[in-house]
Amino acid sequence: MPELRKDPLIDRWVIIATERAKRPMEFHVARDEPLPEGACPFCVQGTDRSTGQPEETVRIVPSLHPVLRRDGDPSRRMRGMYQVADGIGVHEVLIESVRHISNAADLPVEQLRAVLGTLLTRMTELARDPLFRYALWFKNYGALAGAGGIQHAHSQVIATPVTPLRVKEELVGARRYFAEQQRCLICDLLRQEQESQVRVVADFPHMIAICPFASRFPFEMWILPKRHACDFTTMSATELSDLASILKHVLSRLKTVLDDPPYNVLLHTAPFRHPTRKSGYWKTVEQNYHWHLELIPRLTRVAGFEWGTGSYINPTLPEEAATYLRMTDHG
Amino acid sequence: MPELRKDPLIDRWVIIATERAKRPMEFHVARDEPLPEGACPFCVQGTDRSTGQPEETVRIVPSLHPVLRRDGDPSRRMRGMYQVADGIGVHEVLIESVRHISNAADLPVEQLRAVLGTLLTRMTELARDPLFRYALWFKNYGALAGAGGIQHAHSQVIATPVTPLRVKEELVGARRYFAEQQRCLICDLLRQEQESQVRVVADFPHMIAICPFASRFPFEMWILPKRHACDFTTMSATELSDLASILKHVLSRLKTVLDDPPYNVLLHTAPFRHPTRKSGYWKTVEQNYHWHLELIPRLTRVAGFEWGTGSYINPTLPEEAATYLRMTDHG
Repeated sequence: MPELRKDPLIDRWVIIATERAKRPMEFHVARDEPLPEGACPFCVQGTDRSTGQPEETVRIVPSLHPVLRRDGDPSRRMRGMYQVADGIGVHEVLIESVRHISNAADLPVEQLRAVLGTLLTRMTELARDPLFRYALWFKNYGALAGAGGIQHAHSQVIATPVTPLRVKEELVGARRYFAEQQRCLICDLLRQEQESQVRVVADFPHMIAICPFASRFPFEMWILPKRHACDFTTMSATELSDLASILKHVLSRLKTVLDDPPYNVLLHTAPFRHPTRKSGYWKTVEQNYHWHLELIPRLTRVAGFEWGTGSYINPTLPEEAATYLRMTDHG
Repeated sequence: MPELRKDPLIDRWVIIATERAKRPMEFHVARDEPLPEGACPFCVQGTDRSTGQPEETVRIVPSLHPVLRRDGDPSRRMRGMYQVADGIGVHEVLIESVRHISNAADLPVEQLRAVLGTLLTRMTELARDPLFRYALWFKNYGALAGAGGIQHAHSQVIATPVTPLRVKEELVGARRYFAEQQRCLICDLLRQEQESQVRVVADFPHMIAICPFASRFPFEMWILPKRHACDFTTMSATELSDLASILKHVLSRLKTVLDDPPYNVLLHTAPFRHPTRKSGYWKTVEQNYHWHLELIPRLTRVAGFEWGTGSYINPTLPEEAATYLRMTDHG
């Protein structure tokens, strides 16, 4: 059973994923990042157009190496002075195409829309499960971004019974700003970015992509919905199509400008309407939190300074990154 | 001038290091991690025993690519809705040997003691500068741990006018525990680890090395001083020698057990006694904070899940990691 352990000093849970347990010698192999031999595990065996399998199906499958499991005891308990809980959760993989395409930038925009639609449906289902407080959707593209040897376009959903530290930090920041200004921080930020234009990468009818002012990483981007909403699953069909279009656009720009770099995509959305939460809590979140996507190209290595401080050193001005990402004639 | 930018959502400063500015094509090169051609920049040209240069000198030099600079305007100001400050600070490199040794595990223990002694002296000097609130010492060993192409054993000191987010989080956690228990968290943790022994890697007269209960990374270790002290620079000469010995021991164990892995070492110590701080604040820190070293072997890749949640997935039980690191007959 995987185990959740809480750091006694700071408010951070760690998943000890014993079912993936590795002995020292196995890390030697892992460092070489071998590609899987034989057929891609995400390609459908024997699928072709003649079998009638729709070519652009999106599949959701349980992870073969889940870091969390559905069964177990969700209660927190003490082990000596330490807090511990069973590693309960759901870990699923979205296989984004039946074709062996690696980079989601190369999927047709209709396919990206199908991926996001499938995700929206799945998130809505997971939110109904009283066991869970949060679900994270993320994509690792390229070995350096954590995809290991898997090259077939895919992303992952992990639902957890705890709200992650990073999400809590964002909720606290959004609440603080709202308390001072009586306005949503991201709504204000969106307006300012649209006025100044210097960090805007793409401006679509319902979505905007920017290089954030305090970008941690070179060419980091955020995609922000223009309509205030704390919850990704409340998107309209039109907004969903627009999100697919802008995602296709910025992933393609990233591929061109940085020569197909590894990257991560992360969804930041509100915690689930958990039954134990007071309605006041949820009303606050609805008022001041604003869901968004983060895109992180993996060009630099996180090292001692970042681990020690929680600060980041970024060698690229976000304004310059945005200029490169806007240019359409980049060679 | 490097620039400090504050994330508007969470309490995190980013250093935009424009003097290291990179255009998109330069990242293509960086990804290949080239080794420097010609002589090592940290080897002393023409040095040999006949010149009378002491063989085991430790040198502190300003970084050739500083992420922060000594001059500039320390005041914070607004740019639209964003907070910004000049990137003021000191960025220095400790060259840990005149000989071309890569892994600090291979330095004689007397040399490691000289490195730590030099660091202690320099930290004491930096603490007197009213401009600074914190100095971080860290070591990146191996390209995957962020050392780039530099192979000569070295570490870095970065002094900043702001207290880093991660340090603040630890101070908050330590204060919370002390408020509840009237005891130092790390002192309690130390006692519990000594009693159970399961996560202890090495137990020296003044220092102990453990794999922490909620280790984020496989084979992560913390070195804790047995005497309660919030500030690294208050160590006695005996404690300093003991720290050098235990550091040599655990770095050597890491090298043997994991076949010379890349790693980071980070010092966590109290913020400086900044003149604007009330004496009450300092008294609290002295009571409840406990300095320590963190060692992070870089065996796994941080990916979407970690960036999105601030949680970590660790595939190795800390208790098993400690067992491997204790075994002396490991093949």
